Amino acid sequence: METPLHEQIAADLRRLISSGELPVGTPVPSESQLCAKWDASRGPVRQALATLRTEGMIGGGRGKPPVVRRQVLSQPFETFLSFSSWVHGLGRNPGQRTLEIARRPATAEIADELLLDEGEPVVQLLRLRLIDDTPTMLERTTFVEPVGRLLFDHDCDSGSIYAFLGGQGVDMSLARHLVDAVAADEADSELLGVAPGAPLLREQRRATGVDGMPVEYSDDRYRPELVGFAIENSQQAQPTLARNWRSAS
Amino acid sequence: METPLHEQIAADLRRLISSGELPVGTPVPSESQLCAKWDASRGPVRQALATLRTEGMIGGGRGKPPVVRRQVLSQPFETFLSFSSWVHGLGRNPGQRTLEIARRPATAEIADELLLDEGEPVVQLLRLRLIDDTPTMLERTTFVEPVGRLLFDHDCDSGSIYAFLGGQGVDMSLARHLVDAVAADEADSELLGVAPGAPLLREQRRATGVDGMPVEYSDDRYRPELVGFAIENSQQAQPTLARNWRSAS
Repeated sequence: METPLHEQIAADLRRLISSGELPVGTPVPSESQLCAKWDASRGPVRQALATLRTEGMIGGGRGKPPVVRRQVLSQPFETFLSFSSWVHGLGRNPGQRTLEIARRPATAEIADELLLDEGEPVVQLLRLRLIDDTPTMLERTTFVEPVGRLLFDHDCDSGSIYAFLGGQGVDMSLARHLVDAVAADEADSELLGVAPGAPLLREQRRATGVDGMPVEYSDDRYRPELVGFAIENSQQAQPTLARNWRSAS
Repeated sequence: METPLHEQIAADLRRLISSGELPVGTPVPSESQLCAKWDASRGPVRQALATLRTEGMIGGGRGKPPVVRRQVLSQPFETFLSFSSWVHGLGRNPGQRTLEIARRPATAEIADELLLDEGEPVVQLLRLRLIDDTPTMLERTTFVEPVGRLLFDHDCDSGSIYAFLGGQGVDMSLARHLVDAVAADEADSELLGVAPGAPLLREQRRATGVDGMPVEYSDDRYRPELVGFAIENSQQAQPTLARNWRSAS
């Protein structure tokens, strides 16, 4: 299925902005220029510009020519689980350093999240996630044992764990996310390169199968000057959800 | 239109949990008890329990009797704009202290958010929001002048500003929310009663009318030990969005 023209135009503009070819503050190419570049009518060009305006990437309106506002990039919520595929979609390089993978007894808190008994074995993963070599997020993930054990035979730094587990038939159809803020602890500080106590954006996530049984619980901490979450809603439509990335450059 | 029975049962359980009548760690009434109390069949009772499980308020499952997990309360995204109506829905008392309402020229940043020229007049509101007298959120809101001027004739501490503005015909149909974390500045620290530099959960919000023209831009900072945001998504359905409140007691 071919990507609709307005989405192609929007993706190209995002790429130009995120790469810095269109720096913040500069004018966006005019409708006429975009029509000529894409051999397109005004309709798809206007739709692409409206999309980027909604995403907060370009400003203008009320008759003013649009300008680049920020290098904020967003993704549809379908890829909310996978950091790797989100970063790939930005045209950036996702990186990951698995610092630890361990089988250990579930604490009371973890057992409660995963509907296990305290002391039942779980598999825990500590991973540092990077965008273009910049430490961006620290992930503390716990899997139920039958799922987590699959990771002992897998190179966790080779790509998306979720793509790997999905390929193994693991069902993670539903996810609940709790978003809040926490002060960086010692590990956060050392690995993310921030001061102890610095504010971090935290996402706690629990993924379950269609049967409602928990598969994974994760505590992910982001450097808030690099990543935010964007939500849109309206009185008419369902909200859409995106993770935003603020370029460090 | 009558509220469906399963929603009545769920609302009653939420009230019992949030009020502390069912403390964290205690068993939830059994299906049979709930059926008897509500003169209901198993269907609506199970649906109510499933809703509370999804919201993270009760645990259990895999054959274990459900127990109260936390006093986390959530609301549908329709009321995302209004702190007052959200808190009312929890059965708690919303409070507000308007600290300042001022007409002043828009800074470059605000002008950009509201699609104005720098220096055009805007109306800014600084409000402390409380739940049961506990300072919970500090709100820095800027309205375009034709909307903000309506507030000079209004008692901003008398209830929901959004309800008042809606009644005046102001259209705020669409909203974009950016969620991140920030360190408490001097004003945050003093008014919210947290240490300077403490992590706060921030929601930046821009509301527009159906014509896409911005009406309001706000920077809201929450004490993260009191409020979080919850998001649910699935591979099948649209995500739903809620604001969570963690009881301080």
